[in-house]
Amino acid sequence: MNATIITIGDELLIGQTIDTNSAFIARQFNKIGVSIRQRMAIADDALEIVRWLEFGLKESDIIVFTGGLGPTKDDITKKTFAKYFGVDMKRDEDTYNHVKHIFESRNRPFLEINEQQADIPANGEVLFNNMGTAPGMWFEIDGKIVISLPGVPFEMEFLMTERVIPKIFAKQYATPLYYRHIQTASMGESFLATKIEDIENELPATVKLAYLPSIFRVNLRLSGHENDKTLIDSYFEKIKDTLADYIYGFTEQSVFEHLFYKLKQKNATISFAESCTGGFLANALTEFSGASDIFKGSYIVYSDAWKAQILGVDSHIIEKHSVYSPECVADMHRALLEKSGANYAIATSGIVEPTTHSNKVEAYIAVGNRERVLIKKIDLIYNRSKNKEAIAISACFYLLKEFFGE
Amino acid sequence: MNATIITIGDELLIGQTIDTNSAFIARQFNKIGVSIRQRMAIADDALEIVRWLEFGLKESDIIVFTGGLGPTKDDITKKTFAKYFGVDMKRDEDTYNHVKHIFESRNRPFLEINEQQADIPANGEVLFNNMGTAPGMWFEIDGKIVISLPGVPFEMEFLMTERVIPKIFAKQYATPLYYRHIQTASMGESFLATKIEDIENELPATVKLAYLPSIFRVNLRLSGHENDKTLIDSYFEKIKDTLADYIYGFTEQSVFEHLFYKLKQKNATISFAESCTGGFLANALTEFSGASDIFKGSYIVYSDAWKAQILGVDSHIIEKHSVYSPECVADMHRALLEKSGANYAIATSGIVEPTTHSNKVEAYIAVGNRERVLIKKIDLIYNRSKNKEAIAISACFYLLKEFFGE
Repeated sequence: MNATIITIGDELLIGQTIDTNSAFIARQFNKIGVSIRQRMAIADDALEIVRWLEFGLKESDIIVFTGGLGPTKDDITKKTFAKYFGVDMKRDEDTYNHVKHIFESRNRPFLEINEQQADIPANGEVLFNNMGTAPGMWFEIDGKIVISLPGVPFEMEFLMTERVIPKIFAKQYATPLYYRHIQTASMGESFLATKIEDIENELPATVKLAYLPSIFRVNLRLSGHENDKTLIDSYFEKIKDTLADYIYGFTEQSVFEHLFYKLKQKNATISFAESCTGGFLANALTEFSGASDIFKGSYIVYSDAWKAQILGVDSHIIEKHSVYSPECVADMHRALLEKSGANYAIATSGIVEPTTHSNKVEAYIAVGNRERVLIKKIDLIYNRSKNKEAIAISACFYLLKEFFGE
Repeated sequence: MNATIITIGDELLIGQTIDTNSAFIARQFNKIGVSIRQRMAIADDALEIVRWLEFGLKESDIIVFTGGLGPTKDDITKKTFAKYFGVDMKRDEDTYNHVKHIFESRNRPFLEINEQQADIPANGEVLFNNMGTAPGMWFEIDGKIVISLPGVPFEMEFLMTERVIPKIFAKQYATPLYYRHIQTASMGESFLATKIEDIENELPATVKLAYLPSIFRVNLRLSGHENDKTLIDSYFEKIKDTLADYIYGFTEQSVFEHLFYKLKQKNATISFAESCTGGFLANALTEFSGASDIFKGSYIVYSDAWKAQILGVDSHIIEKHSVYSPECVADMHRALLEKSGANYAIATSGIVEPTTHSNKVEAYIAVGNRERVLIKKIDLIYNRSKNKEAIAISACFYLLKEFFGE
């Protein structure tokens, strides 16, 4: 099966909004073996909607629209669909009560324009939207599926995972695939590919191996049908053994999320002494609900004076070795453990972009606990912002790898 | 004039990469009055490239392709173009020397596959790429323009701003527009629109006013032709006077960039005591080259103990008022100025998402210097991550507004 994704919205065409919705939808479909034929962003306009709906119906088995369902724009999208399908509107009682309840609980007047949010074209089914007022819609047209979802990301994500995918399974348009993830960091795609070349050559056509690279890391994803489970598991074990040195986990979680849950499991806390990462680590680890269980505080020590006077780094070390040295991050790590009382600590110091004095773009990190500390030099190849991210990822990777047994 | 943007790449269709390129291109075109008809993401496949090239030539005056120009994929895109246009390949000497120099300076072998990066279809012009090895290409086909750019964002951005836009001006396909920006924060689009309703109703058809909202802020952009400059300036002044209370600047810069340059101009430093923002502020201000001039360090004080023992907040204040109080952020601000020695300080404390105990999602901020401190309560309406951002933006906004005279 294949799908076409169509995002509606003038704000996409003037470049004001970056479209993250279609990547999310593509990933969900990709996981269940539905390939994406193309994605497009189009204007908030009835003629355009009809034109691309017709295009989608010609090209794909599934056509997903997002956006164009706000209370003020409601009329146009839904009425365009109804007119194109040659049907009237019908009111969905569950949605009506849900929308009414939302307005009442917020003490806002429930106007006719809001009542209409519960109306959908008569040939459609409602995809009940627990997260907002605009329901999703599902149509079956000559054996094709047309889906319309609101453009608000968390509403769309809820409807996609809780309504659309289960319905596709229930109707047996696709079957769940079996997946294994191997999360690696520190080495590039081509390095890993060379390492597991023999295993990859052995793979039967029914088992797919995908390399999904991002900054400083590559996710290897094995997939196939449920009945190839044992086979997939055996290849998973082989790859896992061969790449052991570069693996930090076996889920889809980022290295930050992974570290967050490992710390939570261990009832442990972490603290950071960030120079070159400038707060990236603390900001990343406080993105998760319940962060206060594992994180109590941090120092950002950008200048030499903050490192020495506020964190308590030995200033002789800075004088002798400079702040860009293994010795300095080691002492930052020591001082941080002392001051913070945290179980684990990460210290970073380096140069994140070329300066007028030097082209050397590199950082040192120290990761560990009171028993042991690991120091690494990280060579940097991205721009300033992505280099900060790469250092943060590498620090969490080495901490997980060396201290959390994976 | 209108344009169609076509991004090539299988990684876009599996949702692995979020497409930021087409939003950038759309913004650049939008600024010079070229509207975007549609954007699409397509597969890395010769038939698809030809199909959408033909589509673009039918629909638009300008067709921009990005991606599909890596050294290994080079052949397919460029050869597909050459075949479609019925021409041979030609070698561009400047590009050849540039690519050769890049390989030699990195001590990497300069292979035939790399030499071919200097080849383009004979009917095209090279858009010289100072930032990488794949040149951009410009074709003129029956009065239409076809542009091909590499997919690496900073290479594409360089070629778009330094090569494509100037060439469009030089060929007089479009003329530069005259712009004025008014950056506001703290109030929503509809509030602002009501405030300046009368001014907006007066606007002649030749002067456009766009509302560009993002988290906690709205950019108002006036635009028109150069010969309407005086008229646009007069509307700019009117809007500026009416919205004075909500304005922080008159460029396209983010509130963080704006604050960064203001501090640099004043030769002043800033420090943060971040609780609920968890490092967002420090991370945001260290994104700019030369950050170390204005930023020496920060405290992230997530727990009560860090606030009291490490930062030095009076623990009686915490006991009496809790950490989520104007009194607590005020004392965090005082303690931070004392410890950091910075000229300006920002303190944040609040709850960024509903908990099992409470639905109250709000934060307090304290911003100011040794002479004066401003305390604000911020009501939060987004998710955890965006609430952190909203608090950080609001803090910088109020600091700029009250202490930097805009």
